[in-house]
Amino acid sequence: MTKTRLYLYDTTLRDGQQTQDVQFSTEEKHQIAAALDALGVDYIEGGWPGANPTDNAFFDAAPKTRAKLTAFGMTKRLGISAQNDDVLAAVMNAGTESVCLVGKTHEFHVTRALGISLEENLSLLRDSIAHLTASGREALFDAEHFFDGYKANPEYALSCLRIVLEAGARWIVLCDTNGGTLPAEVGRITGEVIAAGIPGDRLGIHTHDDTDNAVACTLAAVDAGARQIQGTLNGLGERCGNANLTALIPILLLKEPYASRYETGISHKALKSLTRTSRMLDEILNRVPQKQAAFVGASAFAHKAGLHASAILKDPSTYEHIEPATVGNSRIIPMSNQAGQSNLRRRLTEAGLNVAKGDPALARILEEVKAREAIGYAYDTAQASFELLAREALGQMPDLFEVKRYRVTVERRKNKYNRMVSLSEAVVVVKVDDEKRMSVSESMDEDGDRGPVNALSKALVKDLGQYSAMLDDMRLVDFKVRITQGGVEAVTRVIIDSEDGQGRRWSTVGVSPNIIDASFEALLDAIRWKLIRDLKG
Amino acid sequence: MTKTRLYLYDTTLRDGQQTQDVQFSTEEKHQIAAALDALGVDYIEGGWPGANPTDNAFFDAAPKTRAKLTAFGMTKRLGISAQNDDVLAAVMNAGTESVCLVGKTHEFHVTRALGISLEENLSLLRDSIAHLTASGREALFDAEHFFDGYKANPEYALSCLRIVLEAGARWIVLCDTNGGTLPAEVGRITGEVIAAGIPGDRLGIHTHDDTDNAVACTLAAVDAGARQIQGTLNGLGERCGNANLTALIPILLLKEPYASRYETGISHKALKSLTRTSRMLDEILNRVPQKQAAFVGASAFAHKAGLHASAILKDPSTYEHIEPATVGNSRIIPMSNQAGQSNLRRRLTEAGLNVAKGDPALARILEEVKAREAIGYAYDTAQASFELLAREALGQMPDLFEVKRYRVTVERRKNKYNRMVSLSEAVVVVKVDDEKRMSVSESMDEDGDRGPVNALSKALVKDLGQYSAMLDDMRLVDFKVRITQGGVEAVTRVIIDSEDGQGRRWSTVGVSPNIIDASFEALLDAIRWKLIRDLKG
Repeated sequence: MTKTRLYLYDTTLRDGQQTQDVQFSTEEKHQIAAALDALGVDYIEGGWPGANPTDNAFFDAAPKTRAKLTAFGMTKRLGISAQNDDVLAAVMNAGTESVCLVGKTHEFHVTRALGISLEENLSLLRDSIAHLTASGREALFDAEHFFDGYKANPEYALSCLRIVLEAGARWIVLCDTNGGTLPAEVGRITGEVIAAGIPGDRLGIHTHDDTDNAVACTLAAVDAGARQIQGTLNGLGERCGNANLTALIPILLLKEPYASRYETGISHKALKSLTRTSRMLDEILNRVPQKQAAFVGASAFAHKAGLHASAILKDPSTYEHIEPATVGNSRIIPMSNQAGQSNLRRRLTEAGLNVAKGDPALARILEEVKAREAIGYAYDTAQASFELLAREALGQMPDLFEVKRYRVTVERRKNKYNRMVSLSEAVVVVKVDDEKRMSVSESMDEDGDRGPVNALSKALVKDLGQYSAMLDDMRLVDFKVRITQGGVEAVTRVIIDSEDGQGRRWSTVGVSPNIIDASFEALLDAIRWKLIRDLKG
Repeated sequence: MTKTRLYLYDTTLRDGQQTQDVQFSTEEKHQIAAALDALGVDYIEGGWPGANPTDNAFFDAAPKTRAKLTAFGMTKRLGISAQNDDVLAAVMNAGTESVCLVGKTHEFHVTRALGISLEENLSLLRDSIAHLTASGREALFDAEHFFDGYKANPEYALSCLRIVLEAGARWIVLCDTNGGTLPAEVGRITGEVIAAGIPGDRLGIHTHDDTDNAVACTLAAVDAGARQIQGTLNGLGERCGNANLTALIPILLLKEPYASRYETGISHKALKSLTRTSRMLDEILNRVPQKQAAFVGASAFAHKAGLHASAILKDPSTYEHIEPATVGNSRIIPMSNQAGQSNLRRRLTEAGLNVAKGDPALARILEEVKAREAIGYAYDTAQASFELLAREALGQMPDLFEVKRYRVTVERRKNKYNRMVSLSEAVVVVKVDDEKRMSVSESMDEDGDRGPVNALSKALVKDLGQYSAMLDDMRLVDFKVRITQGGVEAVTRVIIDSEDGQGRRWSTVGVSPNIIDASFEALLDAIRWKLIRDLKG
């Protein structure tokens, strides 16, 4: 059987940015676009040029992608030609191969929100889409409020789609803008639209998760014949979010009847990067990844029930609907039982620490991890700090240096030009090779004040005797802060990612009610891990 | 038309406890049971007596509920009579009016996991259920892996249901234990089960969210004729969680065709407590509530897109599928660089700043917001900082006090007991009432060192002349840190939530490459906002 092609249209950078508290920088937009392109989506909607400075900057330096980069905008206004509409011109000026315009198809919105006649709306839909195709662009039309509009006045809603189709739109996307339509109704109406003459291979579906049914609504539209799917990574988006591509992609590739009937631009190899891509987006947004997310959540293959855990050991298919590795995720069996200890041993082996089965040190390490996690530490990502903890428990931690004390000062005052400026200064005293060494550094560089953690980091590595040279190729690449108990007086968890000239990358964690101290702890771990690696080297 | 009754069966206290990191205390189980009972569910599954000490303690002091309290367990083992099975006896001994037993209906699990014959399994299903009914209990049967079992061997799966029905089970619950069955298949198989002679008004549905379709699968089973719904509050549960009752309940009460066709034990009045109940559960679990949760999330009725926000002002039904108050939630129109002027004017009005339509100050404020958001500020939630920014632009910012300089020191060294201790000390110099005042504070309180931000906050409010007394009832309740460009040398955004004795709660933002400076800026805004409010009286 020949498979039917489904097209994936990602709107993380546009509708995803409508998520409360989400505001991508231009640089972040580039990172996300690259990840989407590597995944294999067909369209990347990059934003609304003219509406937002970061969107302009993104399109000005548009990434070269295999996916069609798409600019979003709205249909032209009444009383101006499409050519002379400056809002539309800003969208066209982004120069993308495809352009998606949102317009009205619901009579209530035409008369109430736009305040124009139904005929006038039809003419501006036609003129806007015709303007795109005349300019040689691939035209997409987002039929806003389509399902509600169709229920209110099916003839008018359909006439909007027909006029847009005649004007040359490649895709007509049925949008459930308010997110209130349930799957059965989405399926029925999509079928009726196709029966009314709009071909399914020109139809897209755009749903929202306001009833927790966005994925199911999308599947219902595909079942009825729609062939383009709009959604976002991790289900970001206005209100409750858009249809979650991170769930839809594995459904389409792995679950029946979709896997046999359809094909997409996503390969099974790319599917293995899905969990990593999802976590990368959370990293960028500094969000805690949702543990219970379908397919990619840390709990998605965690087997807590005792009956389940023991059956899983006999045969994973007893309590798993797919193999976790197919989406780049992994199985978790709680540390408390036998399987937990073999997991721990595997993790230690990965760090080059061989511990025999049944060694009482395993229980000591598990206990130490539990005790530290209870006070705010997290070792899921901070593998390097986990290794140091295990080395201590195993008596395999080499003597490197000792920090005797440090002091950092942050000052803000007027400079001689009467402008407020800030400066940090750090003093660190270490004992290395039986000698006390004292270093001082400040936070200024060519870009100005970089803050107290920067000053502290520089002072710490400045004079570590025999070790200083080894740290020359080490660089801090990311720094994440999370308050783990709420309230100004809560505990701060700092995670630092470092890398070195040999391409190693490692994460360390520090926890303290004092944010500077938490940062210092994570810095110290990062340095110790690097030195142990190089000394073994 | 007479409505058909649907029965809601809550398993938050049993399957919900299988959530990773969730472990209820007995006291918490009582609190949750009381909330579920007030909401109006029909059944509360309290746990597995005998399997878990907190479950025993909960049933020992079983709450008096209108809902039927139900004990959970598994069918008897082979080779012992139901009367003599100690695991089953522990379940019976909880003395609940109804008892739910899980058993196998999938041939693979019978032979592989239990290692018994298909006939033997049928006999122990029959004997277990017959034992319940003979003891005068209402019997429920959870048909584990039913959908996978039906696909593998429909005749055997159905024969399991028939024998349980004949043995007197009130409810037979079709469980999609691994969570991999999609809605269309759940609907089809449920229909076939009813066609095969199991009455729909004896059938329940129990789904998991492994494909993000648990709610849709539940609705599909109801559409096919099932009449009992199993789920959990906030979708807690093994792996990706169970069907989310917090979404299903409002769908059944508010959305068509469910609202007209069915009735449940939940009143519209109780529905108004849904958001509060959902947040209470998060509070008990010390979880950050999911902003994007359907119906009850803080973002569920947040309108960020400029076009949406301006239409909402004309008529909320333009971009809302239900009225937020029906589920006890509320509307949010946040400020963002995509918001329009009408949104801006409304927000200013809320802050007591009346600006005429078309006032050029509006454009100035929008520009200032955009410029600041481009360097890392975020005004979606930081409404108080937004108000201060607007006041500056409108020339309506009163002179309060001026911070001339500050200095904060963080020190870590050994104390006289040779233990490493840290301490922060802050000096703040302000000019207030034309007088320079200098204050110093340290970070120690009865719980130890609270870090530099705490020291700075105390020094800042210590001596603000006429204003100090006004700040006595102000308290910092949350503190969030986000690195907005990645890397140690990136920009830090701090958001501080404050509250006062009059029940006000407000958020402010500060941005700087220096984390202390960003915190100080947010603190300063918090204080200025509070003073302006109090001075206005």
